[in-house]
Amino acid sequence: MLKTALKTRAFAAAAPGEPLKEIEIERREPGATDVLIDIKFCGVCHSDVHQVHDDWGRAIFPMVPGHEITGIVSKVGTQVKKYKVGDRVGVGCMVDSCKECASCKDGLEQYCENRMVLTYNDIELDNETPTRGGYSKQITVDERFVARIPDGLPLDKAAPLLCAGITTFSPLMHWGAGPGKAVAVVGLGGLGHMAVKLAKAMGADVTVISRSLAKKDDALSMGATDYLATAEADHLEKGKNRFDLIINTVSSAADMNMYMAMLRRDGVMVLVGAPSEALPVHPFSLIPKRLSLAGSTIGGMKETQEMLDFCGKHDIGAEIEVIPMDKINESFERLLKSDVRYRFVIDIESMK
Amino acid sequence: MLKTALKTRAFAAAAPGEPLKEIEIERREPGATDVLIDIKFCGVCHSDVHQVHDDWGRAIFPMVPGHEITGIVSKVGTQVKKYKVGDRVGVGCMVDSCKECASCKDGLEQYCENRMVLTYNDIELDNETPTRGGYSKQITVDERFVARIPDGLPLDKAAPLLCAGITTFSPLMHWGAGPGKAVAVVGLGGLGHMAVKLAKAMGADVTVISRSLAKKDDALSMGATDYLATAEADHLEKGKNRFDLIINTVSSAADMNMYMAMLRRDGVMVLVGAPSEALPVHPFSLIPKRLSLAGSTIGGMKETQEMLDFCGKHDIGAEIEVIPMDKINESFERLLKSDVRYRFVIDIESMK
Repeated sequence: MLKTALKTRAFAAAAPGEPLKEIEIERREPGATDVLIDIKFCGVCHSDVHQVHDDWGRAIFPMVPGHEITGIVSKVGTQVKKYKVGDRVGVGCMVDSCKECASCKDGLEQYCENRMVLTYNDIELDNETPTRGGYSKQITVDERFVARIPDGLPLDKAAPLLCAGITTFSPLMHWGAGPGKAVAVVGLGGLGHMAVKLAKAMGADVTVISRSLAKKDDALSMGATDYLATAEADHLEKGKNRFDLIINTVSSAADMNMYMAMLRRDGVMVLVGAPSEALPVHPFSLIPKRLSLAGSTIGGMKETQEMLDFCGKHDIGAEIEVIPMDKINESFERLLKSDVRYRFVIDIESMK
Repeated sequence: MLKTALKTRAFAAAAPGEPLKEIEIERREPGATDVLIDIKFCGVCHSDVHQVHDDWGRAIFPMVPGHEITGIVSKVGTQVKKYKVGDRVGVGCMVDSCKECASCKDGLEQYCENRMVLTYNDIELDNETPTRGGYSKQITVDERFVARIPDGLPLDKAAPLLCAGITTFSPLMHWGAGPGKAVAVVGLGGLGHMAVKLAKAMGADVTVISRSLAKKDDALSMGATDYLATAEADHLEKGKNRFDLIINTVSSAADMNMYMAMLRRDGVMVLVGAPSEALPVHPFSLIPKRLSLAGSTIGGMKETQEMLDFCGKHDIGAEIEVIPMDKINESFERLLKSDVRYRFVIDIESMK
């Protein structure tokens, strides 16, 4: 139990696979460095469905999902420096970390060497309080884990930037996407469509790789200059030895060596999706072109702010379908069928 | 048939798995840019055994193995610029490439985008003449694929530098081994022992990872500051999150995720050995520390010369056991049992 708590409304799953229903939860009263946020929008990430279904095996119930949060600051702690009441802010996948290790000091809290606290389905550093996500009216977060939404960005289109945006921005920056670089994005979903927009704005030449031709027009309209459909007979050959960087949002085991064939010398394929099975990687895929297979997860708070500022400058938001809170279970079903272009975002004010 | 040929003696396998026997072979008379080399020493690489046994399935017989060649220039073509008769030189794993693609122009002929010609068990760019390696008295090579052996380096200890040396030097340089970097070398064999000496001379802190404690003293005497034996109960724990770079000369499928656990954030494991099976890589090994799994093969001619000059400056040669040519079949047997510390080198003058 929280010592000084405020009550708020949320949508939660009571047990693995259960439909989400409205419940009352507690948030802590803002401590000295905390801000209280009135949540306006929350994106629906594919991992929300995985977690509710306990696909990764460490789920804590009742579970309030949601880590693509935007809203307005409604209260600030006595030592809060960056934010004031009324500020437009966002919260992503993490709400705390040790803040003392080399990674935290480098602004790479997502690689905290001790313990990073996820926004939901995790336990706070007090080893007691479960975290609850953005499918709720309010959230209390340490200002270090809060980012500012640039003025020009609408809060609904900005929400998915806090996970899908930063998850693709970080590897694009780290592996040098920019002018003269050929970048391929595997999978045009929530993450993939952000990767296309971001890589294009960075100046890279972007190709989308998808199974079928179904999303070709969308890909080109988002800034891709080419589109390869792996189900088309000649597209694999067209993709050979072409890319410096592949951002793989799909990571199916069967296709690893096929994608490796599409990299040119010194190319890198970065996995940002996380299949639960091991991927068979043939050394003879890597060795003859000095290739790398890498992984990356979200981004640090410094980089998250840089990403949001970049999106503000380039007028980049997610392609979204706004839904009311009470359509969330239906949206989970549609998400499992990839029936969304390209991110559901919950209008939190639709909750009474 | 070669138009203008000179005859020389060599040791060859007549068919897969056959013992090597002395035969007569032909070399071309040096063309305008060729040098003829009187071979003095040739290292015995593990791949020589694989190729003679046709383990990789494209073997050409009769086969004269050997790609760790040192000797003395005995004749030069009319347009040869870098070498004169009497020069001490070496030849490694390749003797030609397209010389026109981006990789060749970058001095990275080993990643030639058209066709690189291996020193033996390959066909020259005339699509006709089989290449034959250094288990022979003489070889004719284009000067571009010949490197100079620094004065201070004995030709016997220098021979393994042409494959084992450059194969480990290149990834160490490419991935930034040097002061402040923690480098682990998996496997202390022909490649591994060169990696230890080279990484140490570059200023890195070097740890050897081996199965048992058997080679610990050798590793420390070569410059390693620590030694982990994976068969020892507590050594895996001691290795956790420690290394920036792992040079893996062994690459057994079973151990991939174990080594990944030994990398710290942004660490890279480079495969330089080439097992024939796919390696199961778990995405959750890569993603939480932004790790990379990479591959690398030998090095370009520019880098090969840099490596030899580096070895000359730091007085680095291989640890060798010199054998006469007629002990080669016995040495293959011993190599398969890892009964060599750390490279057999054939004294070519032992052939009549």
